[in-house]
Amino acid sequence: MAHKTVSVGNYLLYRLKEVGVETLFGVPGDYNMPFLDLIEDYEGMDWGNNCNELNAACAADGYARMRGVGAVVTTFGVGELNAVNGIAGSYSEMVPVVHIAGSPNTASQARGALLHHTLGNGDFRVFRRMFSEITIANTSLTKSNAVEEVDRILRSCVLGVRPVYIDLPIDVVNEELNLPEWPPKPLDLTPPPNPPRTQQACLKAILSEIRQAKRPILLVDACAVRHNLEKQVQQLMDVSGFPTYVAPMGKGAVSEDHPQFRGCYAGNVSHPQVQEEVHNSDLVLSIGSLNSDFNTGGFTYHIDQEKVIDLHSFATIIYHANYEKGAGPLTLSSTGMRELLPLLIENWPKDIAKPQIPPRILPESADTKTDAITQSYFWPTMTRYMDRNAVIVAETGTAEFGIINMKAPEDATFVTQVLWGSIGYSVGAAMGAQQAARLEDRRVFLFVGDGSFQVSAQEVSTMLRKGQTPVIILINNDGYTIEKLIHGAKRKYNNVQMWEYSKTLEYFGAYREENKRNKTGEKQSQVGIQGTFRTRAELEKAMEQVKREKDKIHFLEVMMDEFDAPQELKKTVEQSENR
Amino acid sequence: MAHKTVSVGNYLLYRLKEVGVETLFGVPGDYNMPFLDLIEDYEGMDWGNNCNELNAACAADGYARMRGVGAVVTTFGVGELNAVNGIAGSYSEMVPVVHIAGSPNTASQARGALLHHTLGNGDFRVFRRMFSEITIANTSLTKSNAVEEVDRILRSCVLGVRPVYIDLPIDVVNEELNLPEWPPKPLDLTPPPNPPRTQQACLKAILSEIRQAKRPILLVDACAVRHNLEKQVQQLMDVSGFPTYVAPMGKGAVSEDHPQFRGCYAGNVSHPQVQEEVHNSDLVLSIGSLNSDFNTGGFTYHIDQEKVIDLHSFATIIYHANYEKGAGPLTLSSTGMRELLPLLIENWPKDIAKPQIPPRILPESADTKTDAITQSYFWPTMTRYMDRNAVIVAETGTAEFGIINMKAPEDATFVTQVLWGSIGYSVGAAMGAQQAARLEDRRVFLFVGDGSFQVSAQEVSTMLRKGQTPVIILINNDGYTIEKLIHGAKRKYNNVQMWEYSKTLEYFGAYREENKRNKTGEKQSQVGIQGTFRTRAELEKAMEQVKREKDKIHFLEVMMDEFDAPQELKKTVEQSENR
Repeated sequence: MAHKTVSVGNYLLYRLKEVGVETLFGVPGDYNMPFLDLIEDYEGMDWGNNCNELNAACAADGYARMRGVGAVVTTFGVGELNAVNGIAGSYSEMVPVVHIAGSPNTASQARGALLHHTLGNGDFRVFRRMFSEITIANTSLTKSNAVEEVDRILRSCVLGVRPVYIDLPIDVVNEELNLPEWPPKPLDLTPPPNPPRTQQACLKAILSEIRQAKRPILLVDACAVRHNLEKQVQQLMDVSGFPTYVAPMGKGAVSEDHPQFRGCYAGNVSHPQVQEEVHNSDLVLSIGSLNSDFNTGGFTYHIDQEKVIDLHSFATIIYHANYEKGAGPLTLSSTGMRELLPLLIENWPKDIAKPQIPPRILPESADTKTDAITQSYFWPTMTRYMDRNAVIVAETGTAEFGIINMKAPEDATFVTQVLWGSIGYSVGAAMGAQQAARLEDRRVFLFVGDGSFQVSAQEVSTMLRKGQTPVIILINNDGYTIEKLIHGAKRKYNNVQMWEYSKTLEYFGAYREENKRNKTGEKQSQVGIQGTFRTRAELEKAMEQVKREKDKIHFLEVMMDEFDAPQELKKTVEQSENR
Repeated sequence: MAHKTVSVGNYLLYRLKEVGVETLFGVPGDYNMPFLDLIEDYEGMDWGNNCNELNAACAADGYARMRGVGAVVTTFGVGELNAVNGIAGSYSEMVPVVHIAGSPNTASQARGALLHHTLGNGDFRVFRRMFSEITIANTSLTKSNAVEEVDRILRSCVLGVRPVYIDLPIDVVNEELNLPEWPPKPLDLTPPPNPPRTQQACLKAILSEIRQAKRPILLVDACAVRHNLEKQVQQLMDVSGFPTYVAPMGKGAVSEDHPQFRGCYAGNVSHPQVQEEVHNSDLVLSIGSLNSDFNTGGFTYHIDQEKVIDLHSFATIIYHANYEKGAGPLTLSSTGMRELLPLLIENWPKDIAKPQIPPRILPESADTKTDAITQSYFWPTMTRYMDRNAVIVAETGTAEFGIINMKAPEDATFVTQVLWGSIGYSVGAAMGAQQAARLEDRRVFLFVGDGSFQVSAQEVSTMLRKGQTPVIILINNDGYTIEKLIHGAKRKYNNVQMWEYSKTLEYFGAYREENKRNKTGEKQSQVGIQGTFRTRAELEKAMEQVKREKDKIHFLEVMMDEFDAPQELKKTVEQSENR
């Protein structure tokens, strides 16, 4: 331990690395470049080199879903506002992303200078105000507040599991901090404890209900994933022996090879047998539920609240009684499941019999009358070519619904926006997820439709530049298929321009000599498959090659019918009240 | 005149068309599609078919700069937030754009339903609040307020010359309005009058100063363009005989073939003779000035306020005296130039002698020692291939500065963001500008750098789809050259991936049969030149073809040196305080 002088920028980078950030995504701008110097020079820290800030923010989101925290760096005004959608998505979907916006120097701000990248009105706080609507904490760093504020903001991000915003003026980046010790004490990331007596009462009530239950089940949803409770869920499955279901946003929280795993429950959109089993249950132990429209088959849950014990991060609700303390979802001191779940496992009654688990539910079979690539054929087939711990990034639209009943490989991670549902998200998110995945030698499978791809296609360039090796599968169904199902099936506005998708890797420079010469500081990806596939036989042959060539990037354009869609999507649309 | 029943959506479209909107830009989403039906069916109204909402908003901005008003339609949350940067740019640069965001049905909003595209917190006003920071008026339409609010909002947009925001719930679109007459009375777009006695005093003071001036000049800037005062400026030049200068943001306001036109003034960044003439003047009649950093050579105006009469849209300032009434730039009742300028022209003293105009200032000559395409060669050369009334869209970076001293063709329009400066803007803006330009048989020349192009490249697809015929000139200088000049010249973060730019039209489907078959409702563009150019001879040969083939789209990748930049850019950077 010794005194140490460290710049504000490097202090921030040190703390970011501590919470798991090893790549910062973003785009250079004249108000953030001194900070980018520090990133480029920081041992073990990588720069994302994204094409635009929307994609960078989505990349940070994808990365955060893998690594616990993600970060994006933008420039004042023009850069940060391009990231708004990405950050709002992280807020909606509960993903901890740190957004650092480089701003003009403090003196210019103080005198309200008429600088470029401003609204021309001398108001330098307007963008921070806008971000305060879609983040849980925000700050402007100064030399004097830097240590305290960096720590506070990162703690909010990690514990609140939502995005935060840091305004970093260009002249503050290199201000030197004189710290009493180095390295500093680790950030305290312990969640505030649950109120002990409320928790005791709660635990007792749950155990009593469990003893009386005849057909209890577990239902696992989004917040089990967001709060990294997969291990606890597994333990709960083991001690309880309960049949276990996931909601669409809970995919990946539970091993689908586990004998107690029964399937995905999403109201009317579920497999008939799943529906029957869930509806017949007399006690639903629900972990981290998020009852949004697309996560519940369009609000078609048929589960009486009088049968549900809801474990949330922010409260425990037994039937109609709420064991919370605090004012809302973001209050940290309430009877949350992070502390309660281990207690529940530990105190599980040893003397109650484990339920009988019926035989595994078989998926509804695909049509075999055609060799065309249909949605019902496609999703169960794809899973055969994935190894364990695959990362599956699914775009809003047919992919998001196609994966609901796709068999997840062991230890798979699913990255998709069931709630926010912003088309184009998946391309940036896949780039970010792959950046995290390669730290653990995992592989990203991106499933994206043609309409969505057109929003954010350029991020494939960044994948190549970073030497990434994802498998990109573009579902070419000739337009916005999900929209056609919802409204305007024959309308021109739901059609898109047909691109030469199969030349995507080539267009974005995969074969350019300049890129191979490593000028950008990275090793360019090697190309495996780049082609268009119309039949099952062609696709399967290509996927065999994909499976073999793990050290390459692959881009498959898969042709599907314009109006073909997973049945899960069709059924959800039927329930929609906004058509 | 007769009673008429018209839907809320069609009433809005009627009014939009009245103020000049014949294309609405945007992207479909499940909360705006019923409104898109109306657009698709509306006689004489076109849908933009953009790839993403950022580009759509920039397109609306480019269109508005040509037609007086532009409009963009997005969907709730995910769509509208992608448009934030574009709308903020319109606010900063004073461009009247109407942003219509389709939102969930009123009943879902009222009960705070957990719908997709929301933050999941039941707050349906959050995005409108965010937009209130970057628009001058906003509203949520209902059946009962529609007529009043549509009229108020559009009036604010046109008179305030800034963006506005309309929330249009999906169930309100087709609500029927019962109007007392049809067509309705035209919108009253008369600006509120100046206070008569203040204006008289002001006029008298200006005329008195003019009589005493020995070396008076006119200096024309951004707001002369934004308030469409080009004709009045021309008349003022004629009656006064004053030598006339433009600021960078005033390019296009004045005929550069006019014998009184002297050049572009931007402080230290100007031609030496322009600087000398402006600094020697004893009376600067300044029209619509906007003294931002990049518009003033980095705050290097050497003009004493005691020599300046400032005519603004919102006030008149004679030396240090402000003849305003009202609280700020957005107050409509003040001594603004829209009313004052015609009075000044009308009352111009006939008995004062017109100044002698010295010989035309010749541009600084380009290097001739090389056949490489240098910046100093490029800009004066390009103008030779443009016809009168060309529309010149210049991206932030080298292009924005390259056009400062480029000779403008007669009746040219310049579209560039000198104040907001968001890279990637120009591609969307060019698409929108071309949409307006073709109504008047004008041609768009887009100048965009490689780094900026990567932000928004996909909008070239929309140009093809809409059968547009712009000339796209991509300046490939291997990275973010403007950033390299500002900071981090040798940094990896300022390099970008090298794409196959010369195949852009091909990649975005120019040769795909499906696109030619007109499924999307448009006639695909025919391709002229698609290639890479390294020498002056090659480029000039290609530009001859470009000039001949006006009915085709052209894409020229022009290779320039990484560190070459217009001297105007280099000089501006030297002044910057944010390096």
